[in-house]
Amino acid sequence: MVDIVVMRAISSDNEAHAKEVRKALDRNKVAGLNLISSPGSGKTTLLVKTIQDNPGLKFGVIEGDVYTSRDAERIEKTGAPSVQLNTEGSCHLTASMIETVLPKLDLTKLDYLMVENIGNLICPSAFSLGVHKRVVLLSTAEGSDKVLKYPQAFNTADVVLITKMDIADVVDFDVKIVEDDLKAVNPKIEPWRVSAVTGEGLDRWYDWLKGLHA
Amino acid sequence: MVDIVVMRAISSDNEAHAKEVRKALDRNKVAGLNLISSPGSGKTTLLVKTIQDNPGLKFGVIEGDVYTSRDAERIEKTGAPSVQLNTEGSCHLTASMIETVLPKLDLTKLDYLMVENIGNLICPSAFSLGVHKRVVLLSTAEGSDKVLKYPQAFNTADVVLITKMDIADVVDFDVKIVEDDLKAVNPKIEPWRVSAVTGEGLDRWYDWLKGLHA
Repeated sequence: MVDIVVMRAISSDNEAHAKEVRKALDRNKVAGLNLISSPGSGKTTLLVKTIQDNPGLKFGVIEGDVYTSRDAERIEKTGAPSVQLNTEGSCHLTASMIETVLPKLDLTKLDYLMVENIGNLICPSAFSLGVHKRVVLLSTAEGSDKVLKYPQAFNTADVVLITKMDIADVVDFDVKIVEDDLKAVNPKIEPWRVSAVTGEGLDRWYDWLKGLHA
Repeated sequence: MVDIVVMRAISSDNEAHAKEVRKALDRNKVAGLNLISSPGSGKTTLLVKTIQDNPGLKFGVIEGDVYTSRDAERIEKTGAPSVQLNTEGSCHLTASMIETVLPKLDLTKLDYLMVENIGNLICPSAFSLGVHKRVVLLSTAEGSDKVLKYPQAFNTADVVLITKMDIADVVDFDVKIVEDDLKAVNPKIEPWRVSAVTGEGLDRWYDWLKGLHA
């Protein structure tokens, strides 16, 4: 049974709630990640694959969705503890929402808290969730022009993953454009190419995750 | 040179502005359409193809984007008049924005006003723009589960186009799921399958457009 919590966005004092979330994570030595992307970029698929490929790492997941618990049901099959957070119309998660559902996960038993944000490249970028790192996914199917069109997602990212590399040729994706645009928007990082289907690039992603606990 | 207008969302009295937009369109016998989808679903590609394939129809385009004028530049190459509307952070267009930029297009010379909304399946659904029809695009690459996850986009649609049908097999897309979910959310319509690459399904879309002026 997936645990579903329905919440609406309250924007007041997001930073105060973010600090409380951070304190709870740090107290329990849990690394928190905020996963942001368009609908259908492969956030849940990457999470499922990451959990399955790393049985030695203990993941907990907060699944954000406007409606439905389909994603949390997919996570549940991996055996990782998960909470479905439904916003019923709201276009992003807030730190207050995370703070509210956090007690549903036993942080003492986790290494990582993975928060899958609402499928939206715009609004989620404006709200800190109190976690440590922000990971932005861009699928090759979305096209090569998205970094400059949605700069606020990419310039606040700690990691950018280009997903669905296995279909890059079919959808005529030009990784060079993304690399160049990212240099303009967020020169500290370069995009990592991954595919949950072929496994391309996943080792680097897993190494980075493990490094958060090094 | 692409004409760029920067605007921020003001939510007050959206319906009053929508009425003014509708009056201007009706006075000039222009059919107005609001195109909504995730980033990278193919709104601009469909618009370019539609304009190119129908030289007898007079299209004007309002291109909504958070930043950049890339889409309006693509439209401009077709010869159709276009205005780029940049929201600089806002996640959707409003009727007030449309009303403000409308004088930049000579409505007496148009049959259709195509408004490409911000790439976002959530927020744009909540704002009427005063146009006549709402068209929602879902690309096969986004996955088959999106209708129930973003019902507010699909239950307010007059037409749902499943785009990128040419890669449906590669991305393991199941059209039956979308058809079934749409029956639950918006039983008046069924999704139309299209591909701007192969031309699949475009005749039906063009016939429907022409029917708006029948």
